[in-house]
Amino acid sequence: MKVNGQPCRTIRLHPDNPRIVQIIDQRQLPHRYLLEDLATVADFAAAIREMHVRGAGLIGATAAFGIYCAAITAPDDGKDFDNFISDAATCLKATRPTASNLAWAVERMIKAMATEVEVPEKKQRALLEAEAIADEDADFCRRIGEHGLKIIQEISKRKNGEPVNILTHCNAGWLAFVDYGSATAPIYAAHAADIPVHVWVDETRPWLQGAKLTAWELGQEGVKHTLIADNTGGHLMQHGMVDLVIVGTDRTTRCGDVANKIGTYLKALAAHDNQIPFYVALPSSTFDWTICDGIKDIPIEERSGEEICYVSGQTDGGGEERVSIAPLNCQAANYGFDVTPARLITGLISEKGVMRANQEDILRLYPEHG
Amino acid sequence: MKVNGQPCRTIRLHPDNPRIVQIIDQRQLPHRYLLEDLATVADFAAAIREMHVRGAGLIGATAAFGIYCAAITAPDDGKDFDNFISDAATCLKATRPTASNLAWAVERMIKAMATEVEVPEKKQRALLEAEAIADEDADFCRRIGEHGLKIIQEISKRKNGEPVNILTHCNAGWLAFVDYGSATAPIYAAHAADIPVHVWVDETRPWLQGAKLTAWELGQEGVKHTLIADNTGGHLMQHGMVDLVIVGTDRTTRCGDVANKIGTYLKALAAHDNQIPFYVALPSSTFDWTICDGIKDIPIEERSGEEICYVSGQTDGGGEERVSIAPLNCQAANYGFDVTPARLITGLISEKGVMRANQEDILRLYPEHG
Repeated sequence: MKVNGQPCRTIRLHPDNPRIVQIIDQRQLPHRYLLEDLATVADFAAAIREMHVRGAGLIGATAAFGIYCAAITAPDDGKDFDNFISDAATCLKATRPTASNLAWAVERMIKAMATEVEVPEKKQRALLEAEAIADEDADFCRRIGEHGLKIIQEISKRKNGEPVNILTHCNAGWLAFVDYGSATAPIYAAHAADIPVHVWVDETRPWLQGAKLTAWELGQEGVKHTLIADNTGGHLMQHGMVDLVIVGTDRTTRCGDVANKIGTYLKALAAHDNQIPFYVALPSSTFDWTICDGIKDIPIEERSGEEICYVSGQTDGGGEERVSIAPLNCQAANYGFDVTPARLITGLISEKGVMRANQEDILRLYPEHG
Repeated sequence: MKVNGQPCRTIRLHPDNPRIVQIIDQRQLPHRYLLEDLATVADFAAAIREMHVRGAGLIGATAAFGIYCAAITAPDDGKDFDNFISDAATCLKATRPTASNLAWAVERMIKAMATEVEVPEKKQRALLEAEAIADEDADFCRRIGEHGLKIIQEISKRKNGEPVNILTHCNAGWLAFVDYGSATAPIYAAHAADIPVHVWVDETRPWLQGAKLTAWELGQEGVKHTLIADNTGGHLMQHGMVDLVIVGTDRTTRCGDVANKIGTYLKALAAHDNQIPFYVALPSSTFDWTICDGIKDIPIEERSGEEICYVSGQTDGGGEERVSIAPLNCQAANYGFDVTPARLITGLISEKGVMRANQEDILRLYPEHG
């Protein structure tokens, strides 16, 4: 995707020094676009832990490049090399223990190096594997875009080329992956195909990823969009102002229940009440094949109430500051996710195609998990 | 209700000078509790226009006291007096043209003075009528509390005295009326009757009336409460953490559709999906007897997108400041209200009692509108 008109991925080797990895410090968005150089395992761990990067796909790719940087700085002795990598893996995996892509990417990196070759060859393989993980993430999102594009094309035809109004929640955009995003991929594909689209962006309290990230990336790509309070979607849907909802997911059960950012369930209810298609876009790595009932079996992370009682942003003076919006010492509850039951979901869009949100249809595309 | 442990109404004559009216400058809450003195029509007009006071009941009472202050400062010549009052009425009615209680209160004040008596007697009647309007508002809310209390008592019995968890949206509290509030009246009545209650307070973006006003007034009264992002209610309801929803309304159709703060409809959908009772509390002045289909016939106010793109609050340094939470020049849409269809509403609680949200049941309590 583009930043300031230039093609850009969310993570890449430094153009002048392949021993350094560049990320966007997403905490600074939307007011400052800052690239950050990562070289040591400590750099990578801090970037993941302190959420300079976030989103399943990007966390995985960042961890993979973290192992790559560990490998190129590790001792050349085989045993010392393995110990160094093992310590790096432990350190990176501990940064966000619930991010399943993180552990998966680290394990995959270690496996790629677990061969009977010399250390220099292992270092070479680390680079290739990290790049493969990033490329695969981008490719999966690109394919989600292709499959989802057909849904938007259909609606566009029905509307005789009038803009297709798409509502999204949180940021399942390219900032959450290496490129394209999941929920945004069909939107970018439609935009690239000159299909007129307009996106309603839920601001997504408490973290405001919609206001701070999704609105920013849509703006960079030139996609028309309007920011709204999370309370607004129901009204828009009642009045025919939404043609389609597309959201991402953090975890998807084998029966099609979807855990996504808190508030997703409310939008699914409103879409259902107004007969508006509600799609969930996902790389298949978000499937948890071990569970069916998401409401019963997906534990929901609780975070600090401070994130409810304070809002951070840029003051008129240009500084970053937080303001208190509630009585001091007000008790607040902060649940990170909710579960949207499969019955409210029109379809899932993965890199393999579009499927209805039920076990039978999901397993038809993923028979290996039957 | 109480502030700092002392009984208090949201509007009253100054205890030391009956020519001055005291209000709470609600823009300063929750961080500063400031009483403000109003004496001239210009004072009252500014207080209403710039939302030092808000909420249907309180706007009406403030306008009534505004006419009272106009009357006591008006010339003693009959014709000059009438002209002075007429100008004051025009000025006050123009401050918030869509607030139907405002025009109603002003008209009622004028009618009370439109008799063949001398000007000093008219001034006396102005005071009595303004006090009657305020007392009636408080009394209606108190009665809403009595009727709603029975609903909470029933749930409390079923839960064997475990706290009754009540979710509310926006501020239909005593700060919006002269006393007690509408949605909060049953909660305060239960609290006074030693029934354990706990309130989930929707922060209510974009204005944050839940975080800034409802959390504050519940805290002053000692009612247990927890602030949540507007996105959270669905998750809580799915997990049995909400026993009852009570909200207010700005306008209620004769068929039971309810226009209330944006986002109310989403909570009604979630309550319906989880078989949780959803009640709307209202003084009957919010009924609009001329319309039935709220989604079709209630125009929804649109306000500035700035209220979406900026959040105001208190900085760590103690000053009041606004912070930008979106890309600069981001387009934003700001709808003030949405309509909850009657089919999602368990019942309406008015000063006359509890009724189901359909025309037949409503007209049984209000046969004069049949």
